[in-house]
Formats: sequence, C-alpha cells, structure tokens
Amino acid sequence: MRARHKPWADDYLKKHTEYVVLEPESLKGNWQSRFSQHQPIYLEIGAGKGQFITGMADQFPSINFVAIELVKSIIVSALDKVVESKPDNVQLINTDAKDLRSFFGEGEVDRIYLNFSDPWPKNKHEKRRLTYHTFLEQYKEVLKEGGDVILKTDNRHLFEYSLTSFSQFGMVLDEVTLDLHELEDPTNVMTEYEEKFSSRGQPIYRVQARFQ
Amino acid sequence: MRARHKPWADDYLKKHTEYVVLEPESLKGNWQSRFSQHQPIYLEIGAGKGQFITGMADQFPSINFVAIELVKSIIVSALDKVVESKPDNVQLINTDAKDLRSFFGEGEVDRIYLNFSDPWPKNKHEKRRLTYHTFLEQYKEVLKEGGDVILKTDNRHLFEYSLTSFSQFGMVLDEVTLDLHELEDPTNVMTEYEEKFSSRGQPIYRVQARFQ
Ligand SMILES: C[S@@+](CC[C@H](N)C(=O)[O-])C[C@H]1O[C@@H](n2cnc3c(N)ncnc32)[C@H](O)[C@@H]1O
Ligand SMILES: C[S@@+](CC[C@H](N)C(=O)[O-])C[C@H]1O[C@@H](n2cnc3c(N)ncnc32)[C@H](O)[C@@H]1O
Repeated sequence: MRARHKPWADDYLKKHTEYVVLEPESLKGNWQSRFSQHQPIYLEIGAGKGQFITGMADQFPSINFVAIELVKSIIVSALDKVVESKPDNVQLINTDAKDLRSFFGEGEVDRIYLNFSDPWPKNKHEKRRLTYHTFLEQYKEVLKEGGDVILKTDNRHLFEYSLTSFSQFGMVLDEVTLDLHELEDPTNVMTEYEEKFSSRGQPIYRVQARFQ
Repeated sequence: MRARHKPWADDYLKKHTEYVVLEPESLKGNWQSRFSQHQPIYLEIGAGKGQFITGMADQFPSINFVAIELVKSIIVSALDKVVESKPDNVQLINTDAKDLRSFFGEGEVDRIYLNFSDPWPKNKHEKRRLTYHTFLEQYKEVLKEGGDVILKTDNRHLFEYSLTSFSQFGMVLDEVTLDLHELEDPTNVMTEYEEKFSSRGQPIYRVQARFQ
C-alpha cells in the first residue's frame, strides 16, 4: 500500500492518545485497562486504512479490537475513521508486528486477523511474510489457548504458502474457502483491498486455523 | 464415471490374473510377491480407466503400482492398457477401497494417490468421500511411517473439505497448489479427468499431505 509522506501524521497520532497507543510495550499484560469493558481482544495485523477494524468494532461491540499498522501515513486514515465514529472498543498501534511479543502478554489475545497481507513473492523475502514461522511463534505466544488466526487474501501464492506454513507449524485448519464471496455473507466485513479485488471478480481466499 | 454394462468384463478380468488380483485379502502383507522386483508400493484409489497408473508405471520403473477401482466396466479399460503395454510393475484390484485394511498389511504402502475422487457434494454423503476420516484411518494404517497421500481434483468443495479433513485428522500439509497447470511440468502424469477439465481451462488443485 503506497501513501504520500504526511508530515503532519506524527502530530495527529500524538493528539489522539485516546485511540492511539504510543508505547504498546507499557501495556503488555494490561490491555484491558485501555477499554471501557473487559472482553475478548481481537487483533488485526497490517490493518491498512482501518475499514475492517472499524466495521468489525461496530458489528461486534462485545469484542475489543486492536489494529497494528506499520506505516504512519496509512494508519492516519484508520485514525480518521475512528475519530469520526468514536468506538469505545478500538485501539490503534503504529508499529511493526515483528515485535508482537513485547506488546502483548501470553494468552492476552483471542484472535488474530491477517487481511491481504503483503505477499512478498520472492523466496528471499519469505521471512517478511506475516505467516512465516517466526511470526507464527509470536502469534502462538500472545494467543490464548484455542485462539485462532484468520487470513483473507486474493494472493494465490501467499495463500498456498500460508496453508502449508500453518500446517507445518502444527496448526490445525478449521475452515478453508477458495471463494469467500461465492455465497453472499452479510456478516463478512470487507477490507479496502477486498473490495478492490472482489469487484474485479478475483476470488478471495480465506483460512481459519488454530494452534494446538 | 459412467460406463455401459459389459457382460464380458468378468471373464476378461479372470483371464488376466497376471495383472488382476482377484482375492486381494490373500496378499495382505505379501504384495511384493506379485512383482518381479521388491520396491516401494504406490497405490491409486479410484483409478478409473488407468491412464495415470500406466503412465506412472512407465515413468517410474522402480516403483510397484497397485490400482483399485470399484466399477468393473471401468477397470476393464485400465486392464486394456496394461495388457497392451505389459508393465511388470502394475497390479489391478476391482473392489471397494473401504476395505483397504483387509488387503494391505500395516505400513505395506509407501504412497496413496487420489485422483479426481467423486466429490459427493451433499453433506449427507460426506462418509463416501475418499478423504472422510474413516478412509484416512485406513490410509494411515496401510501407509508406512512418513508415507503420504496426494490428491488432485478440479472440485473446489472436495478440495476445501479435504484440506481441513487432513488437517483435523492430524496430517501435515507439505505442498498445496491451486493451479497445478500454471507451470508446465513434464513429470506430471495426467489422468483422464485431468485432461478433460484442464483442457476446459479449469484449474486443477493438488495437495500432498503426510501422517505424523
Ligand atoms: C496490502 S495492505 C492491506 C491493508 C488492509 N488489511 C486491507 O486489506 O485493505 C498490507 C498492510 O500491511 C502493513 N504491514 C505489512 N507488514 C507489516 C508489519 N510487519 N507490521 C505491521 N503492519 C504491516 C502494510 O503497511 C500495509 O498497510
Ligand atoms: C471421477 S472418477 C476419476 C477417475 C480417474 N482417477 C481420473 O482421474 O480420470 C472416480 C473413480 O473412483 C472410483 N471410486 C469411487 N469410490 C471408490 C471406492 N470406494 N473404491 C474404489 N473406487 C472408487 C469410481 O468408480 C470412479 O471410477
């Protein structure tokens, strides 16, 4: 996802510390304190412009959502949406998910969403894929027992890769679909990328997998 | 696969006991005795008209192949091909794979191929799918340690089902492809169904999975 440099982005994030967690390490093991209600935490990694997380937060008020997005000039669009709709169950983190373990305590998270993660098609970039085993190790640690990972993507190679990566890591696949939009599902919250690709007629792949 | 009733089929199979095993139970644990060379055994279940098994036997002389096909009027076409090419590494069984355990000893088989297995799309027919857990139990028993199952199919729902069925049974997915013919692979032996569906431009799915 490309975005112009936005010199004001830093100040904007700092102005909204009710939604933006500037020092996520300081909340490790204590995320419930950021929310008005003590309820399950669902985490999205690579949240982009925030359409998914805000749509989910609206649809599921009894879940607390945390969105991680690496790129400052992108996460500001997510913040725009949050500032606009004022949910009490969304928190944003502008950081790299590679340090997940330092932000969340063991078992603190109930579910992880990966939506249209960057495919990194070259073999030499395998380590950057969000379903590479070093990421899975972190997900396993921060997820509670029986917690799951849900991946949606239009990218066939990332999907094939992720299925085997999950399986070889010892995860169990609970659901696989190779055409999420075949049947209309009003509960499916679309991401920005999902809208773009599915409107072009490309199939959307989805897998739900859990650690044992 | 439909085929006309062929009243002569029974006699034809009985005439070629050098290729057709009429009483597979009697060979349990002793399949190597049917082959001229003691070498790994690869089993195809639902072999249809035999194009795959005869093509594989030709390409891999150092493997012993056994093909199981339920329908007599279909397996005769496989026998035709075998009688024609006279391989010393192919044996045919005209029976139902549901009794696999009574034909093969523990660990007697090195690999199982499922090619374009009947999809049985209705939920109430799930038990008939060759990747239903009762079949997997049998595969696990007759396969040697580390032996694998390779499924090719054009059927999206059977493929989705099989991925989760394998995974939930505790199998590990080693390779998944959602478009086997994307790259030309001269070592891929096509089945009759594979030729038909891929010539229509339908993607062919393939998974290679192993018991732990
Ligand atoms: C292709 S975009 C998809 C955005 C959004 N999920 C959607 O579906 O529309 C992938 C996003 O993941 C972010 N990303 C990639 N690697 C990341 C990482 N290690 N930590 C946090 N975010 C990451 C990128 O900055 C980008 O915004
Ligand atoms: C759709 S056809 C595919 C044939 C061939 N493998 C191909 O790819 O061209 C499936 C075949 O599996 C056979 N079959 C289905 N269930 C079986 C079972 N339980 N045991 C043995 N054969 C079976 C059917 O009779 C049929 O010939």
